[in-house]
Order: sequence, then C-alpha cells, then structure tokens
Amino acid sequence: MKLVTTINIPEKQLNELRESYPEITICHCHSEREAQPYLEEADIVLSDHLNFNPESIEKAPRLKWLQLTTAGVENIPFAKIAERGITVTNAKGIHGSQMGEYALGMMLAHTRKLLHYRGLQKKHQWEGGFIGGELAGKTVTIVGAGAIGSAIAEMCQVFGMNVNGVSRGGASKPHFDRIVKEEQWETLLPESSFVIVLLPLTPRTKHFIRQEHFTAMPRDCFFINLARGHVVKEADLITALESGQIGGAALDVFEKEPLGPESPLWEMENVFLTPHIAGNSDHYMEKVFRIVLDNVANFLANKPLKNQVDLQANY
Amino acid sequence: MKLVTTINIPEKQLNELRESYPEITICHCHSEREAQPYLEEADIVLSDHLNFNPESIEKAPRLKWLQLTTAGVENIPFAKIAERGITVTNAKGIHGSQMGEYALGMMLAHTRKLLHYRGLQKKHQWEGGFIGGELAGKTVTIVGAGAIGSAIAEMCQVFGMNVNGVSRGGASKPHFDRIVKEEQWETLLPESSFVIVLLPLTPRTKHFIRQEHFTAMPRDCFFINLARGHVVKEADLITALESGQIGGAALDVFEKEPLGPESPLWEMENVFLTPHIAGNSDHYMEKVFRIVLDNVANFLANKPLKNQVDLQANY
Repeated sequence: MKLVTTINIPEKQLNELRESYPEITICHCHSEREAQPYLEEADIVLSDHLNFNPESIEKAPRLKWLQLTTAGVENIPFAKIAERGITVTNAKGIHGSQMGEYALGMMLAHTRKLLHYRGLQKKHQWEGGFIGGELAGKTVTIVGAGAIGSAIAEMCQVFGMNVNGVSRGGASKPHFDRIVKEEQWETLLPESSFVIVLLPLTPRTKHFIRQEHFTAMPRDCFFINLARGHVVKEADLITALESGQIGGAALDVFEKEPLGPESPLWEMENVFLTPHIAGNSDHYMEKVFRIVLDNVANFLANKPLKNQVDLQANY
Repeated sequence: MKLVTTINIPEKQLNELRESYPEITICHCHSEREAQPYLEEADIVLSDHLNFNPESIEKAPRLKWLQLTTAGVENIPFAKIAERGITVTNAKGIHGSQMGEYALGMMLAHTRKLLHYRGLQKKHQWEGGFIGGELAGKTVTIVGAGAIGSAIAEMCQVFGMNVNGVSRGGASKPHFDRIVKEEQWETLLPESSFVIVLLPLTPRTKHFIRQEHFTAMPRDCFFINLARGHVVKEADLITALESGQIGGAALDVFEKEPLGPESPLWEMENVFLTPHIAGNSDHYMEKVFRIVLDNVANFLANKPLKNQVDLQANY
C-alpha cells in the first residue's frame, strides 16, 4: 500500500503515520511536480486543494483515495474524480477554533477600538473617555452555518450577542438564535452589526454577496470574509467601504491572491487585511493528522472514511 | 426623600429615576464640590469611588445609603461610614461582559499577531506564512474568581482554554477547570500562558504580584492587569518586560494615573496600554441603572439592598 504526498508534511506527523501503520509505504514529496514519477504506484494521495491537478490524476491509475489537508476543495477536478470513483476527504472540522479566534479577535479589535488606543499609546497620550462599544447585545449574521459557523456562533453567544445564521435548509441549530434559508438572508441584514461569510465557493455561491446586500447593511456594519474571495463581489465591497455604506471589514481572502499592489484595500483605515491565514494555526498539522490517522485505519479496514467530500455538491 | 449626585448622570437615566420614583427629589450635581451645599439634606448619595471623600460624609448627617456607579470602592472612607452605619452599594456585576471583551480582545490580538499583520498591510506586503498561535489548548490563570473573573473564565473555556482561578477560599466554581487558594497561586504560574489580574485593591492585596511571580511565569507569558495599578509592583513588571522574563502585557491600570510621560511602558512594543477604560461600555450607565432602580425600590420598601459592600473586607 503506497501513500504519496504532494505537499510538505512535518517530520513529526510522518513519523506518527509510519509508526502507526508500518504496512504503508510513504513517499514524501514536497510538491506536486516532485510527486509526478511516484504517482503511478499511489493508492493514496495526501495533498491540499491547490496541489492536485487534472494531470496528476491521469498519472495515478491506482489512486483510490485523495486526502486533503485543507477544508477548501475548489480546485480539485471533481468530474474526473467522480468518473474514476476516487474517494476525496478533506480536513473539515479543524478550522472552527482558529477561525473563531480570528473572527472574534477582529470583532473585538474593531468594537473596542484597539488601533485607536494603540495610536494614543504611540503618542504617549492618556485620554480617559471611552469611545468604543461592546459586542454584548449586538447582532451577528453568520452566512454558512456549518462546522466553522457553529463554532463561531458558540463564541458569539458567550459574548452575549444575538446570533443569526444562514444555511441552505434553514433548519435550527445549537448556538444560533435564528437560522434562515439562503433565499431569505437579505431580511437579516438591516439588523446586523456584523456579517461573517463562511460559504464554500461553488458555482452557486460565486458573487453571492453583492452591492444590493451592502446597501441593506447598517452603515456601521463590520463585514468579515473568511470564505473565498469570489464569494463576494470585490468591486462592490470596495465601493461599499469607500462610500461609507458599511463601517469596516476584516478580509482574509480576495478574488486574486496574493492581493495585487494596486488594490485600494491596503490603504483603507477601516479595513483589517490578512494574507489568507485565518484558518492557520501553529497546531494545524497535528489537527489534520487526527483525521488522517483515523482515515488510514478506516481505509485499511475497508470502513467508510471520515469527511468525505460530496462530489456532486462540490464541498 | 432626597437623592444627591456628585457625578454627572445622563439625562435618560435621571428621567427613568424620576418617572419610576416621583417621591424622590433628585439634586443632580456634576461634581463633589457642586454637591457640597446639598449634602445636608441628602438621604441617598449617588457617586463613584473617586467622588465621595471624608469631608462630604461630615456634611451629610442624614445620609443612609451611598450607591456607587463603580465596582471599585478603594477611596471610600470606610471607617467613618461603618461608624455612621451608612450602607454602601456598588456596581458589581455589570463589568463582566466589557472586561471580558477587553481581556479576550487583547489575548486574541497578541496570539494572532494582529499588529504584525497590520504592519504588513501598511507596507502592502503579502506574507502567506502564519506566525501566530491560538488560544485553544493554552492555560490562563485568572487571579480573582469573582463575578468578572467568572465571566472571563466562561469566555476562555469556549475558546478551548484550560482555565485556572485564584480565590481566597479556593472553592471550585463553574467555568474554572481548577481553583486554588491565594497562598498556593504561585504553583499555577509555570504553566500559565496568560495571567489576568482582577483582585480588588485592599491593604492585603497591595503589591500582591511582584518580581518572584514574574520570574515564575513562562517567558512567553502574556500578563493582563484589569484590577488596580497598586495590586502589581509596577517597577517589577517593567523589569520583567524589559528583560524578557515575560512575553508581553495588556495594562489598563497603573500605580499613578494618568500614567506619567516618563514611564517606559508607553514605548514597549509588546505592551498594549489603555487609559483605564477596560470596564467602560457605551451602555455603562444603562447597566448601572438596572442596579440603582432596583435598589431605590428596595430602599423605599425597607428591603436589603443589592451589591452591599462589606465594610470590613473593603470590597
């Protein structure tokens, strides 16, 4: 049984795998290109959503299982994979804590005016009057009520926020005060002090959030995109920020990454901009390997794998 | 029945009071000095811990109840008040949400390297590698396990932290994984990634935290003081920060306030410094008046008042 990687995996995790399953031969390639000669014998490929392209599938005739270290799957060639009957699993379920920390960190920094106070500190200026607000009592709308959305909802509730969710089915879920179907989501906007976007990118969700939605948000609304750049129409977001239609944003993802130097977003005072790191953690691979090790056991025992990606729904 | 204020109260809250209890005559003075001529007839005084000094008590022979809008009570002349049998109540219980927001905001900003990413943004620099960490799995020690400490503990637990508490009695409480008595608190330090100080300032807690404690903390420990400046020996804290004995701090209170321009704390990169605003909120007086209105009802009905300050324990 042969497992080929197309990304770099820390030695610690490789050793865990080797020790737990000596029957598996591991071919540790650091890139998709380096992996090309070894794919012919691969039963399992360990990769992420950017490093397993159509040409690699062609070269892997024995491949039965593709395990991704990412939750996102949007660059994976679904049609070919479905045709070949390959099982795809992802790292869904390990992003909640760090993305929740990112979201709440940004919401708190914005609401408690952390940068304002940092500016006063730089000027050695003591100004006693408080100009911030608090999360308690405010409303957040979480667009995408899956594992990550639910983790963030739980955090928001502990801060005394009113938590709305948006999902395809609209069924109620723990930690949300209210969930509506995607078709009705615009009704939530006028009351939302925060909008957090977590939708997976699929053909259906491309530009899900546009001008009309920013117009419906309150003028002090703080917008957070932790999904994918293309879920939001970036030009409309820029207009909304420039014209004061919304109050600010924390953006971790963009239509084009890295974000081009010409983007006006870099210079906006009311925008926190981060280079697609919201899902990262210094314990990321540890968490991924809890899934990988379980799935290797399942694979060897012919049991169903965890975190199977729905090849029809593309997520 | 006459109520005299020695601090400014927003019109909204005064009207609530007037409408609910027309039998009370309100004398709205904006300062202790302005209140002097009216104290003679005062049955009730509404003040805060800085604006009711010994000379005011002498001038208020009818005073039966002093309601503070602060949780802190350390400048109140306890001996005279006890002698006179005056009841003192404070605003305990309304600070948990905003101080929790401050604490978690600072912890998240520090851990997720928010200022580092803000710096990259200013330079229009996209650096994909993540250099931050996460709160999940880390240990926080909350020194002072009262109402505010418990509120912060609940927030920390939702972020997957291991939560230690320190209290006089050491009895277990919800939201703390472990509580120890004050005498044993140093045993918690070596494992603490975060130490949050919330002790009330009393003669017993002055300089409760000193050099030996900073030495016992891990070198990446992040220290947060939300209590009072004098609970910590500031010179020792400065040494610990300068020498790298601890990793950083968020400081809202200082031995001398406003903090003097000569303090080296202003310039420290690893210190977030705020001008005693952690307990503030844009809804502060609203929350205080939930207590005040209840207590006026209790006072008029001769019932025990809420939030009575223990005149022996000084908090």
